[in-house]
Amino acid sequence: MSESRGRYSRRIKDIEPFHVMHLLAQARALEAAGKDIVHMEIGEPDFPTPEPVTRAAIRAIEKGDVHYTPTLGLPQLRERIAAFYQQRYGLNVSAQRIVITPGASGALLLALGLLLDTGQQIMLADPGYPCNRNFVRFLGGEPQMINVGVDTDYQLTAALVEQHWTTQTRALMLASPSNPTGTLINEQELAAISQIVAQKDGHLIVDEIYHGLVYDDEPASALSFSEQTFVINSFSKYFGMTGWRLGWLVAPENAIPDIDKLAQNLFLAASTPAQYAALAAFEPDNLVILEQRRQQFQQRRDYLLGALRKLGFELPLTPQGAFYLYANCEMFSDDSFRFAQSLLHEAGVAVTPGRDFGDNQPQKFLRFSYTTSLARLEEGINRLQAYLVG
Amino acid sequence: MSESRGRYSRRIKDIEPFHVMHLLAQARALEAAGKDIVHMEIGEPDFPTPEPVTRAAIRAIEKGDVHYTPTLGLPQLRERIAAFYQQRYGLNVSAQRIVITPGASGALLLALGLLLDTGQQIMLADPGYPCNRNFVRFLGGEPQMINVGVDTDYQLTAALVEQHWTTQTRALMLASPSNPTGTLINEQELAAISQIVAQKDGHLIVDEIYHGLVYDDEPASALSFSEQTFVINSFSKYFGMTGWRLGWLVAPENAIPDIDKLAQNLFLAASTPAQYAALAAFEPDNLVILEQRRQQFQQRRDYLLGALRKLGFELPLTPQGAFYLYANCEMFSDDSFRFAQSLLHEAGVAVTPGRDFGDNQPQKFLRFSYTTSLARLEEGINRLQAYLVG
Repeated sequence: MSESRGRYSRRIKDIEPFHVMHLLAQARALEAAGKDIVHMEIGEPDFPTPEPVTRAAIRAIEKGDVHYTPTLGLPQLRERIAAFYQQRYGLNVSAQRIVITPGASGALLLALGLLLDTGQQIMLADPGYPCNRNFVRFLGGEPQMINVGVDTDYQLTAALVEQHWTTQTRALMLASPSNPTGTLINEQELAAISQIVAQKDGHLIVDEIYHGLVYDDEPASALSFSEQTFVINSFSKYFGMTGWRLGWLVAPENAIPDIDKLAQNLFLAASTPAQYAALAAFEPDNLVILEQRRQQFQQRRDYLLGALRKLGFELPLTPQGAFYLYANCEMFSDDSFRFAQSLLHEAGVAVTPGRDFGDNQPQKFLRFSYTTSLARLEEGINRLQAYLVG
Repeated sequence: MSESRGRYSRRIKDIEPFHVMHLLAQARALEAAGKDIVHMEIGEPDFPTPEPVTRAAIRAIEKGDVHYTPTLGLPQLRERIAAFYQQRYGLNVSAQRIVITPGASGALLLALGLLLDTGQQIMLADPGYPCNRNFVRFLGGEPQMINVGVDTDYQLTAALVEQHWTTQTRALMLASPSNPTGTLINEQELAAISQIVAQKDGHLIVDEIYHGLVYDDEPASALSFSEQTFVINSFSKYFGMTGWRLGWLVAPENAIPDIDKLAQNLFLAASTPAQYAALAAFEPDNLVILEQRRQQFQQRRDYLLGALRKLGFELPLTPQGAFYLYANCEMFSDDSFRFAQSLLHEAGVAVTPGRDFGDNQPQKFLRFSYTTSLARLEEGINRLQAYLVG
């Protein structure tokens, strides 16, 4: 067995693992040893899948609806999502433009696979969700990371896009609300960015997977500003269906035949039981449950934001959505990675260090998730207070 | 809206759609207009998911086991698959080497993503399953299609691999049983190929998704010959779980950290309800059902093979597995694509023309699937007889 068979592709070397996984493994080990850990590092809501959805899944399985669906998804689910855009945003989005995917990951693979050639660039905000830049690298492209900060709500602006666009830039990818910052993009900026991207003859991809979880506002979808925009969404976060691995892509109508072809080859179709389950996600009884959960997330955000500020973390913005706070911790440490280790081992609180989200001063930041109950968040804050303030 | 925004990636142009989809759409239209069609074009077994599996899924959903699993899969499912290799093949395969994926597609994406760099080649047999070469193109690689025929059971041989290997060849991909031919690779050849690939410092990927459906033989897994081989398998075909989208990859132990990293980024984890369902797939009561089905597939193969030969189709080999027969039809037509159209519209029988499987004389071949009942296969044969013989 030759040693050199260990040589793998260059693309593999360019992709970083999630650093938080090491931390999560340490947290699990501490728990296995009997220690109690408050989890504020996890990006998965603590709520179970709502009962109307699980009931629909069970009904479908009992009926034998477990064969392949069409590649683009169950027609009735595509219609439901189209109706949801009408109902929630007042937007006409044809069901023909909606593609059901295995998670938002599947949607991102389709959009980037369609748009990106080897060596081309995709513009992204830094800090941002690590998978996005890794997908670009996976496909032989180059992520063009643009630093953003508090002054622009941690979002790209029309001016930044204009300034950084190169002849190799193929597309711009935004996330609103953003992970890790929870901030929305300003609507005027979004409209202006849509125009600039069109002028540059590029493409715009917008991740709206946290769009259902916005607390102070009723934000517009990026679909409002151009029918050429690619929008990625998911049943994981707002709809509480993480483990089902179901998402969707809204694409320009003329892209659908190519997307169909790609999806046939890349995954055939999304999970059938998950698709039948998702049909119930838009029913009124389920939406009532989801709205109650959204209010609970809002309470958690309000509590955690105030409590972290009181402890001395720098959080000048009020993030409008998702379930993350991206806190500057330089008053406590000049190395957030080491600081997160200390918080875990000495305070029993797990958080995600900035390192996973890019190269824009990650050592100054920690991401706090409020995916756990208010009582546990309070416990976490008490522990942080005892550790930091004494 | 600028017209040129229709410009998509070069990779998209290199990927062909499944031609059979047009035929399937025509078949559906004929059915909608009241015509009866015998489906011998479909690659999905007609059997429902066995009840032990659906019961396990329902139990998991009722218990709330619907959160994300670890990226590499539920540990107990990885253990079960390892035990299956021991039980069925007498092979020691560590559970650490087994990665649970969203369908076999997810496994192929991981293996090629790990091994392939832009511009490199992957060697494949022609005819072969179209997704394989399209995956290679998707990742910026070049499929190196090697013609194979009846003389080598439609499989590559050690001599062919040796002869065609270039400095750009990164890996060889085999499928045993093959789609569309149903043929197995000879074990001596497989052992010899393993050695050659090792000498060339390349990698071997073997698709064994039809391995559970072999009728005359108890074939060895490619894992018998080298621990460096990548093996792709699936719960779709033998285990009857198509719509659940669940598969697995067996990889060399030293590749697992990189595969974990890739999978974290590309899909997070496979469907949780599907993984809990699959735990029941290896239970004795379920295996009894699967073995009965395998016998039914064998009866269908025996019937269809004899009947097609009697009609005059050229089928010199007896395919040992899968649920496909790849028949030479040049005695009836010099264009199998047009011939398939005629069979659909004039005889009410849907089959897949060779065009989907490569460039090796596809106009001479049709693929017949025996994924429908014996009674329907008999009806199909009667119609073919009436149409062809009169």
